[in-house]
Amino acid sequence: MYKVDMNSDLGESFGAYKIGMDAEILEFVSSANVACGYHAGDPLVMEETVRIAKTAGVAVGAHPGYPDLMGFGRRNMVCMPKEAKAYVKYQLGALQAFTRTYGLTLQHCKPHGALYNMAAKDKALAMAIAEAICDVDDRIILLGLANSLMIEAGKEAGLKVASEVFADRAYQADGTLVPRKLPGAVIHDTEEAISRTIRMVKEGFVTAITGEEVPLSADSICVHGDNPSALAFVKNIRARLEAEGVSIVPISEIV
Amino acid sequence: MYKVDMNSDLGESFGAYKIGMDAEILEFVSSANVACGYHAGDPLVMEETVRIAKTAGVAVGAHPGYPDLMGFGRRNMVCMPKEAKAYVKYQLGALQAFTRTYGLTLQHCKPHGALYNMAAKDKALAMAIAEAICDVDDRIILLGLANSLMIEAGKEAGLKVASEVFADRAYQADGTLVPRKLPGAVIHDTEEAISRTIRMVKEGFVTAITGEEVPLSADSICVHGDNPSALAFVKNIRARLEAEGVSIVPISEIV
Amino acid sequence: MYKVDMNSDLGESFGAYKIGMDAEILEFVSSANVACGYHAGDPLVMEETVRIAKTAGVAVGAHPGYPDLMGFGRRNMVCMPKEAKAYVKYQLGALQAFTRTYGLTLQHCKPHGALYNMAAKDKALAMAIAEAICDVDDRIILLGLANSLMIEAGKEAGLKVASEVFADRAYQADGTLVPRKLPGAVIHDTEEAISRTIRMVKEGFVTAITGEEVPLSADSICVHGDNPSALAFVKNIRARLEAEGVSIVPISEIV
Amino acid sequence: MYKVDMNSDLGESFGAYKIGMDAEILEFVSSANVACGYHAGDPLVMEETVRIAKTAGVAVGAHPGYPDLMGFGRRNMVCMPKEAKAYVKYQLGALQAFTRTYGLTLQHCKPHGALYNMAAKDKALAMAIAEAICDVDDRIILLGLANSLMIEAGKEAGLKVASEVFADRAYQADGTLVPRKLPGAVIHDTEEAISRTIRMVKEGFVTAITGEEVPLSADSICVHGDNPSALAFVKNIRARLEAEGVSIVPISEIV
Repeated sequence: MYKVDMNSDLGESFGAYKIGMDAEILEFVSSANVACGYHAGDPLVMEETVRIAKTAGVAVGAHPGYPDLMGFGRRNMVCMPKEAKAYVKYQLGALQAFTRTYGLTLQHCKPHGALYNMAAKDKALAMAIAEAICDVDDRIILLGLANSLMIEAGKEAGLKVASEVFADRAYQADGTLVPRKLPGAVIHDTEEAISRTIRMVKEGFVTAITGEEVPLSADSICVHGDNPSALAFVKNIRARLEAEGVSIVPISEIV
Repeated sequence: MYKVDMNSDLGESFGAYKIGMDAEILEFVSSANVACGYHAGDPLVMEETVRIAKTAGVAVGAHPGYPDLMGFGRRNMVCMPKEAKAYVKYQLGALQAFTRTYGLTLQHCKPHGALYNMAAKDKALAMAIAEAICDVDDRIILLGLANSLMIEAGKEAGLKVASEVFADRAYQADGTLVPRKLPGAVIHDTEEAISRTIRMVKEGFVTAITGEEVPLSADSICVHGDNPSALAFVKNIRARLEAEGVSIVPISEIV
Repeated sequence: MYKVDMNSDLGESFGAYKIGMDAEILEFVSSANVACGYHAGDPLVMEETVRIAKTAGVAVGAHPGYPDLMGFGRRNMVCMPKEAKAYVKYQLGALQAFTRTYGLTLQHCKPHGALYNMAAKDKALAMAIAEAICDVDDRIILLGLANSLMIEAGKEAGLKVASEVFADRAYQADGTLVPRKLPGAVIHDTEEAISRTIRMVKEGFVTAITGEEVPLSADSICVHGDNPSALAFVKNIRARLEAEGVSIVPISEIV
Repeated sequence: MYKVDMNSDLGESFGAYKIGMDAEILEFVSSANVACGYHAGDPLVMEETVRIAKTAGVAVGAHPGYPDLMGFGRRNMVCMPKEAKAYVKYQLGALQAFTRTYGLTLQHCKPHGALYNMAAKDKALAMAIAEAICDVDDRIILLGLANSLMIEAGKEAGLKVASEVFADRAYQADGTLVPRKLPGAVIHDTEEAISRTIRMVKEGFVTAITGEEVPLSADSICVHGDNPSALAFVKNIRARLEAEGVSIVPISEIV
């Protein structure tokens, strides 16, 4: 019996600013990465996001980012590991105030944007994130890029880890993503994206952009609910996975 | 056997900005109100403050404020109760990430500055704060101005409450503070401040500025460690209280 | 020959957050109030907003607000007049960097949200705003609520002032707006709103909610471009004003 | 007749947070780099800093930084050039509101911290800064690291440029600074620092850490007023320069 998690970033609105189709995407995913007020989100948004995730039966995780609201956490910031560690702890704790309100536990932690991308390649930063989770609650699962240093760091820190894959991204022979600026980095053909994803989940392999067969764990698929067409893709890929006998379940039922 | 808590605001530094004599004041107080990143404090400062408070054997509480770093949380902001509630929850949770790191529980919550002053006179705001505490952890003690609506709200919400008194402030006949802008609001004579405080603690009464004897609970005395003379006063009042047979203990041993 | 300005708030997007239909509303208004980074807007947004306003031939003014991005500048903050003055100067100057880039001068300054509403009733705050404008460039027109203390303060400070009216709001006998929380504050009937506005512009009178005929200057009409129906109303009222022989011109051609 | 400017970073306080000995250092320097609210400084601080600089007869320049108050602008942030350009414009304009208040013109612009260091080695970023200055006022002098890409960019953009040297830093054979993390990067001997500085000013040469004689322009010397010993050094180096026949004058009298 195959199973995989589908995760999406939620709660990215801020004050008067609304972003994302949170209520709609919650119908299709099994885990929600909730922004924690540093790169996006505010306390009211966090409260509401946790509330609707619970109602939808979707597991809640933290989505901590750099303190860069103006850049939506997408810009690399060179922080010391101890700074990053403290920032992740702060955000994890802040979100837990809202999960406790609704009787939930924090299922996972998936760093956002630049923090995610930098930690995938920087062991000291990845360890800082893993240690932050250990300090706050070592039952929280670290969700990171498959085959990245984040997964390695999580294991070293003694955490449960979950490997994230991307349906619409090309992979390199070493199992990491082809950088977005390179040609072929994004797979625009929906059918190809879906069949690649099914293969990652069922066989644990993906074909690299250079032709090699690359093994990778596919515990969770990253999907987006920013706009109606993204939402349609999510609905589509979920249906196709289920038709292939793959159950969509929260990460906690996988790792 | 008499006992009282002495509390002080700590962890108000931010980034490169240092404020307060935290290490020094920790030698004399029994409870620390730690800023949570909204009006002051940042994650690194919070981590370090909790660490040194634990080492000093001082109980840790949260000191949430309005999101107004530029005004240090001292400016009235007209928020809806649900906004204030969410802000307090966010800050309580964020600080708990650090208390958990050091194996501590959050002893109390004392709102800061304008939030404290507004909640003392605004029942809806005070209830929002009390409910925020209930949502996060109803074992956290609400520390508020003696005889204020904050104490009333905490009781209604089913929380343990602790009444705070000020050594150097004059009181009105209704048990509330004489506003700072009025003459006589601040007691500049050290001896008078100390003897008034001893009486509040041992007898539960203070003489109002208009002459009446006013009953009030004195569970905790607010002291400051901003500068050497403030620190000397704290050392002095602690010694005098102890000489009068009053033990200085954390709030959790009082209420 | 009748003439009036139509103004709208623009440039309220922030980072990844998009708000408003700026390009569309610019087709119908004569003056743009551009957010300056405190309650909304960021430097890239300011640059782009000034650029498209220039292209559209719309005059540019500043729309300074309280430093409260999370509350979109809509929450009352009790600042000292000297704080408000410095905040307005900071924001005026920041926007001028972008108007200079495009060879424009700043036509006017219209405070935003809570700053606008508080200054309408608080002479010291209104004077602080007027003095801020004087310090930066006394040729900048102060755009404020008709019959409010902001208009009075602008005159006292020696500034050119422009009185703003609202098509869809009811007025009190003293010429000020009926507070939003009271019944009848908002005029929902489009035809009524339009005919009231035409009368304000052509006759200089409005009928108060209590029946009195109230004189008021109508130099500029506030309109919104948040959504398609708001935009349709703007298009409609502009066409109707022009059909009545009223020219829509920037404030600088009126006062 | 020799002359050189002495510049220092001022106005770095923020809200309740005080930093620097601004009043004291103003007695010894000829140019002040005033923080503009992104990495440090706030509108009240900017107003006061410009005021006391004028009183002291010290020329005022802008000291724009990354939007990173928590990191004091010292952390590298990977912004697009157009973002950096807009940020610099915003900050230049904001400060001009205060220089205009006091009838001053902005003499120069010296980027702060990480922005300064990154722009010294990144031509696109350096050009973004230079273009920002051109857009706002092309009479503003760009003050950058001697022999860096910032100086090159300023010249290409048609700006007047001033080369900054450091009394207490070692130089590499290519005329750039020895990175702080390398041994020998900082010159701790006061006499050596002073004699090196005098030679840079009078002869236009410095001895590299590897022994080569390196030509460099020394238009302005960077000094600090963070603490009493830094202040004593500034007083000392100024006296020694003057004793050597070097006049201390604002940058505008040099380039």
